Amino acid sequence: MKKVEGRNPVKEALEAGRRIDEILIYQNAEGINKLVKKAKSKGIKIKRVSKEKLDNLADSYSHQGVIAFGEPIRYLSLEQLIDKAYNETDAPLFIFLDEIKDPHNFGSVLRTADAVGAQGVIIPKRRSVGLTPAVAKASTGAIEYMPVAQVTNLVRAMEKLKEKKFWIAGADMEAERTCYQQDLTGPFGIVIGSEGEGMRRLVKERCDFLVKLPMKGRINSLNAAVAGSILMYESLRQRNYTD
Amino acid sequence: MKKVEGRNPVKEALEAGRRIDEILIYQNAEGINKLVKKAKSKGIKIKRVSKEKLDNLADSYSHQGVIAFGEPIRYLSLEQLIDKAYNETDAPLFIFLDEIKDPHNFGSVLRTADAVGAQGVIIPKRRSVGLTPAVAKASTGAIEYMPVAQVTNLVRAMEKLKEKKFWIAGADMEAERTCYQQDLTGPFGIVIGSEGEGMRRLVKERCDFLVKLPMKGRINSLNAAVAGSILMYESLRQRNYTD
Repeated sequence: MKKVEGRNPVKEALEAGRRIDEILIYQNAEGINKLVKKAKSKGIKIKRVSKEKLDNLADSYSHQGVIAFGEPIRYLSLEQLIDKAYNETDAPLFIFLDEIKDPHNFGSVLRTADAVGAQGVIIPKRRSVGLTPAVAKASTGAIEYMPVAQVTNLVRAMEKLKEKKFWIAGADMEAERTCYQQDLTGPFGIVIGSEGEGMRRLVKERCDFLVKLPMKGRINSLNAAVAGSILMYESLRQRNYTD
Repeated sequence: MKKVEGRNPVKEALEAGRRIDEILIYQNAEGINKLVKKAKSKGIKIKRVSKEKLDNLADSYSHQGVIAFGEPIRYLSLEQLIDKAYNETDAPLFIFLDEIKDPHNFGSVLRTADAVGAQGVIIPKRRSVGLTPAVAKASTGAIEYMPVAQVTNLVRAMEKLKEKKFWIAGADMEAERTCYQQDLTGPFGIVIGSEGEGMRRLVKERCDFLVKLPMKGRINSLNAAVAGSILMYESLRQRNYTD
């Protein structure tokens, strides 16, 4: 991603120290003096342009009058992600997303993963939304800090993690145990399936165990990002009580 | 709301027994035989129409070739909501939404509120998204089952609930206690503020206490619906352990 769209995402990119070459700003934009000042102090070129120009350049639903160009956010390799994680902690937490296609859901997962202090997110190359400007926007800047590995084969990535002492739990509404009945601590991976169909069969079979959320209502599913977020926080809760 | 848009929302409306008068279906739609059969068995008029006709009628981002017309979903009064809740349980759970404007967030909250078996959602009349087709779609049918009260004054509604023995917790990132350090059982209300600004001052002041989610990352906020969902599930977890 060489483009960053929207006020908050551009602000976060500047604060995270990502290299930005140029920022296009709507010529009549208001309330962005701080952002302009910060960019100028870093020697970044600023260009005032028309709304039409920005609309044509934007990929996401809303650029809010600001689009920046610069160094793309890079994916890490799985090996880099694992090394980085174990350098930070003895009990890393990873999130696997199995073919999540909605940029809002991916962005929201990045945001919660950052909030719980997870070490990374792993996505497959095919049939998944990647690190797009719309995901950046939905992540409200978390994309700048949360490492993401894009892998050819998600099942093989799960096996690799298991060799590295990870336990892997899949979120599945048909599971026998709830997340409250399962130990979610230690080096740990949580797999979230796609919104419509859940995990693919091979992915589900490779999990060490499956967990569900208690469902007391009439509608038998949750938004994928919401379900993932609740599981991440339950893992965090258990870590605080046990570590 | 007299219109229901999208395959799943229409299916849920039929299953919930809502009165539907007519369903418009895209003339070349595939994979909807079950829905058509169900509608016909209830004597509902079905009309095949062009895509343009449906696009013009739709309010939400995606009608998926199906729009139904019928009895609107009605708001309950606060008194009705409270009576209904105490008829169901001694320890009802309500969610207050303080000026949530994003239909996806409102729909997602309805979906989680259904999942945890909450008794109702309370929203203010002004500056909030109501029970629109876009909210129905995002709720994936939960809108059919989760009672919603729309009130003129949210603070007065909170006071009313407190008279009825409710404790009310506001979600606030500046709170001293996390939701894990606070008892969230009994007759209980959780207040979620708007995405950009959190709770309004008067709303915040009227809460019995404030709770936060632990934040271990760099970005200091969560999506409003995600934060609300995590709090609802933490309340559910505590109820299972204590009731």
